[in-house]
Amino acid sequence: MKSYTKKLIMNTENEKEIINITSDVEKAIKESNIKEGIVLVNSMHITSSVFINDEEEGLKEDFLDWLENLAPYKPYQFPKGYRHHRTGEDNGDAHLKRTIMGREVICAITEGKLDFGPWEQIFYGEFDGKRPKRIMIKIIGE
Amino acid sequence: MKSYTKKLIMNTENEKEIINITSDVEKAIKESNIKEGIVLVNSMHITSSVFINDEEEGLKEDFLDWLENLAPYKPYQFPKGYRHHRTGEDNGDAHLKRTIMGREVICAITEGKLDFGPWEQIFYGEFDGKRPKRIMIKIIGE
Amino acid sequence: MKSYTKKLIMNTENEKEIINITSDVEKAIKESNIKEGIVLVNSMHITSSVFINDEEEGLKEDFLDWLENLAPYKPYQFPKGYRHHRTGEDNGDAHLKRTIMGREVICAITEGKLDFGPWEQIFYGEFDGKRPKRIMIKIIGE
Repeated sequence: MKSYTKKLIMNTENEKEIINITSDVEKAIKESNIKEGIVLVNSMHITSSVFINDEEEGLKEDFLDWLENLAPYKPYQFPKGYRHHRTGEDNGDAHLKRTIMGREVICAITEGKLDFGPWEQIFYGEFDGKRPKRIMIKIIGE
Repeated sequence: MKSYTKKLIMNTENEKEIINITSDVEKAIKESNIKEGIVLVNSMHITSSVFINDEEEGLKEDFLDWLENLAPYKPYQFPKGYRHHRTGEDNGDAHLKRTIMGREVICAITEGKLDFGPWEQIFYGEFDGKRPKRIMIKIIGE
Repeated sequence: MKSYTKKLIMNTENEKEIINITSDVEKAIKESNIKEGIVLVNSMHITSSVFINDEEEGLKEDFLDWLENLAPYKPYQFPKGYRHHRTGEDNGDAHLKRTIMGREVICAITEGKLDFGPWEQIFYGEFDGKRPKRIMIKIIGE
């Protein structure tokens, strides 16, 4: 079994942002020279996500609005606000948003390539950005 | 390390449907002849899911109702509707529903079998169906 | 390729509880003697979760409140209650809560250790507890 580890550094302009990282993952697979196996891609932080969906601008905006509704910055359902903010943080919503979107994806590698459906693209979802964060890419196989 | 790749084709009768695919995954594990390792099962489409829960008819209906509430076809919270629909699509809700249910599962294989708890079953969750879609099964191990 | 399988038994005092299991996973990695690879950690039950987030007491309470809001024990949006309860069960909400939090995590192992970001910790989320349940740890690599 061979393995290959690579870390990407993300530093978003906006606090909340969705960024397509498919080509970065494809590049790592090429570098690994692994032809059959799997690739794990995960956010190394707890207020951001890695997920798979569609490269469509409107949908990305829909995701951010929808998440704000399910896990609001100001939680109207908790009149005292998030307990997490007692620590001095104000990013409680980012922990929850990332939970809905997921921490990681695992993708099949076949004949040296991402074995994907027609519309699958890998995204980094940042919910507490404007500072450097890391993404793990771990590839195992032959 | 050995690997085995198989794709299932799903073509649901209904637009939204939950289908038990555990026996298909078990069959692929047998075909692979892999005794120790893991199996990745993922939807290759961005409006359907693979997830693990209970084989119970009422619960499946609960899931569909609950998802309609969290990610409605007509999003009452967004008066103008999903931005994704500007492209001519009308399946914005399916992208969100699949996000909650998840794209993929990874399961342990021990002694040639799914190493599962007593109630774990693998399901395909379709949220924009009535047309052929594919599921990836990728097995790696020895 | 080497593999290592270990099961943890959890028996929570409370019906709903979030427990840090990072050191259990680290111990299993040591026992496996695997230096490069991945570890799969999943709940073997369908009303509990394994997920990664922050070790912070207020945030854990926020998670439980937030989940009660998204997947309530008494679903105000379904006047007749969960259909799953026709079977005699009363844990419909636990199946939904676990779905939001996720069944499993996959983590990279590099140089014999969890290759984690600064705040990543692994948790078991129990939503229907007070009885013995199992967690699967499956490690593959070299």
